[in-house]
Amino acid sequence: MVNDVADEVAGIAAAGTRMVLVVSAMGDTTDRLIALAGEFAEPPAPRELDQLMATGEQVSAAVLAMALTERGIEAVSLSGDQAGIEVSGEPGAAAIVRVDPGKVVARLGSAQVVVVAGFQGRDADGELLTLGRGGSDTTAVALAAALGGADCEIRTDVHGVRTADPRIVPDTRPVRTISYDTMVELAGLGARVLHPRSVELARRHGVAVRVAHSSEPGPSTVVAAGEASLEGTPRVIGIAHERDVRLVRVQVSPSGPDQYARVLATLAGSGVRPENLSWPDPGELRFTVRGSEPLGPPIGELAMELEARSTVLEELGSVSVVGTALLDPPGFLPELLRILAGHRVTVPSMTTSQTRLTAVIPADAVDTTVRALHDAFGLAEDTR
Amino acid sequence: MVNDVADEVAGIAAAGTRMVLVVSAMGDTTDRLIALAGEFAEPPAPRELDQLMATGEQVSAAVLAMALTERGIEAVSLSGDQAGIEVSGEPGAAAIVRVDPGKVVARLGSAQVVVVAGFQGRDADGELLTLGRGGSDTTAVALAAALGGADCEIRTDVHGVRTADPRIVPDTRPVRTISYDTMVELAGLGARVLHPRSVELARRHGVAVRVAHSSEPGPSTVVAAGEASLEGTPRVIGIAHERDVRLVRVQVSPSGPDQYARVLATLAGSGVRPENLSWPDPGELRFTVRGSEPLGPPIGELAMELEARSTVLEELGSVSVVGTALLDPPGFLPELLRILAGHRVTVPSMTTSQTRLTAVIPADAVDTTVRALHDAFGLAEDTR
Repeated sequence: MVNDVADEVAGIAAAGTRMVLVVSAMGDTTDRLIALAGEFAEPPAPRELDQLMATGEQVSAAVLAMALTERGIEAVSLSGDQAGIEVSGEPGAAAIVRVDPGKVVARLGSAQVVVVAGFQGRDADGELLTLGRGGSDTTAVALAAALGGADCEIRTDVHGVRTADPRIVPDTRPVRTISYDTMVELAGLGARVLHPRSVELARRHGVAVRVAHSSEPGPSTVVAAGEASLEGTPRVIGIAHERDVRLVRVQVSPSGPDQYARVLATLAGSGVRPENLSWPDPGELRFTVRGSEPLGPPIGELAMELEARSTVLEELGSVSVVGTALLDPPGFLPELLRILAGHRVTVPSMTTSQTRLTAVIPADAVDTTVRALHDAFGLAEDTR
Repeated sequence: MVNDVADEVAGIAAAGTRMVLVVSAMGDTTDRLIALAGEFAEPPAPRELDQLMATGEQVSAAVLAMALTERGIEAVSLSGDQAGIEVSGEPGAAAIVRVDPGKVVARLGSAQVVVVAGFQGRDADGELLTLGRGGSDTTAVALAAALGGADCEIRTDVHGVRTADPRIVPDTRPVRTISYDTMVELAGLGARVLHPRSVELARRHGVAVRVAHSSEPGPSTVVAAGEASLEGTPRVIGIAHERDVRLVRVQVSPSGPDQYARVLATLAGSGVRPENLSWPDPGELRFTVRGSEPLGPPIGELAMELEARSTVLEELGSVSVVGTALLDPPGFLPELLRILAGHRVTVPSMTTSQTRLTAVIPADAVDTTVRALHDAFGLAEDTR
């Protein structure tokens, strides 16, 4: 794997291109380090876990730089700290606040390739912290933004974004370009190609991000602002889905925005992240929650504090039509509803926006519905 | 091992003692990292090897801090850089130039135990470098010096210094205190308990260093200036030895200090480190060289540049009587010579100083001679 990457980078470097590579830990390194920590502390102190985990990416970076040097490419590795990645926050969940581009620029003066350990940085107190989920993607985008005008490419285990999950739909098509907004919708809904954090960062700094497979040739997707010019054209880009969804209905009396605000504050205080929020009837707030989040305690709290009655529907999923100007006439909603009805799918909740039409449906109907929508909206690969 | 250390440190910490621990890499970590590097580059780029190797000690430090935290001790780990270890030099062979004590002192304000990754530091350009041999000992001594007034204890695989190598002599005695000078003589001559670099650093900063076994209770040795008061009293402290020694005789004509200087400059330029140097006859320079050093090329150079004729005697060793005021009357040299003669040991070369009397002898005579000297100088353990 390291040798494959080194071969490819050496090929690109032969043309004289200067590059900054951001790497994550190799293979099972992260698991091994977590197991090592588990031998001595349960749970390990979060700060020390960060000190430990950060070595995983440092090892990858050093090894890749060695492999490049072996191929005659001048390469140096840098820890997140050495690369000027300034972060803040808690261990294991830090966020990048600033990148000092001078450090990497200085290295690029003498080395053709700079390999940066992803997922980590140094805070104002000199503490080494690892980033939260999507930390390597975010490091790459932040460095590209700081360097200015750099192309940013994320290598992962898929060929960019497709029109639906290929494990469900046999004839998906690659999406060549996608806007930041649409990418966030897709990423947030199961097509987890790029972490929403990194997309948000790319949008804010106008960094175009190409997502490609780490080793196989094939299609790739560019996430960029360029597609914004198409924002006015109604277009379906893909079908996203979630499998493990619960639908919560909260009834409060008296009802009104003030009561809803109190419900939301109580949920936020309990760490529940409501998605697809709507209030279909007076006095009822409706939202979905992902399967992994504990629901009992916050619902108990709602009952205690606001005398709210809650119902939780389990074993649900969702399908989303993702695109641009989806509600502009003639609109894609009528067709979505027609397809759902044609398949006799019950829809206990639906939310809509210009970029996403989401139907909450039974979990066991997700696969067939995704296939039906993919087909109906003409996303299937052109096999002529 | 980590748990044993953590248990012991927790016991000491229970009394309220604040501590700085310096750790090296665990078990076979260093070998595994070298093997990993070898998979991708042969030889690996020295700078990258340092970036890689430094993670070994960082892992140890984080894991020990976790284990301490698990035992209710407030502990934090620091990389060499985070601990303010400033170094200069080449990768794999850097030297500590300064320690910024503020960094560790600040940590000791909030944590009772600070665990520092040994063997590493950061240079003025922000490069991470590992220290040469003895790097962990040296880190500990440098930190003790920087913190001022701290006790320094080195835990290793022996119970301090003994009067001779216990693998050769059955009834050695522990040496309770030893001066810096004597320790350097012993360390340089095979009793490699503490690296001479760390002893030199301890002397320069007046740091008393206790050397003890890492896990077993037992005797220990304090290396300190305190013994200097005994410097005037003739005393034999121990018998050191070397096994793999070659004796080189260089004959130059015309002879004289100037010619000798040219010989030494040529040798230094070839990386040969002459030891036990003497010039017994006009025109002949005599010195020993350790077995691992390549001798052919420098001797060829001497012949070319200075028309010097050289003879190399192989399969030699050396025994040294180490102590204080060794040449003061009545002197230990006569007894040494008498013992060597009594055992019919040939002595092709001998050098003497107040702290060391060294005889170059056949390698196969080393063991019996060490035992005879240990016995004759009354160093044997008092078994009454």
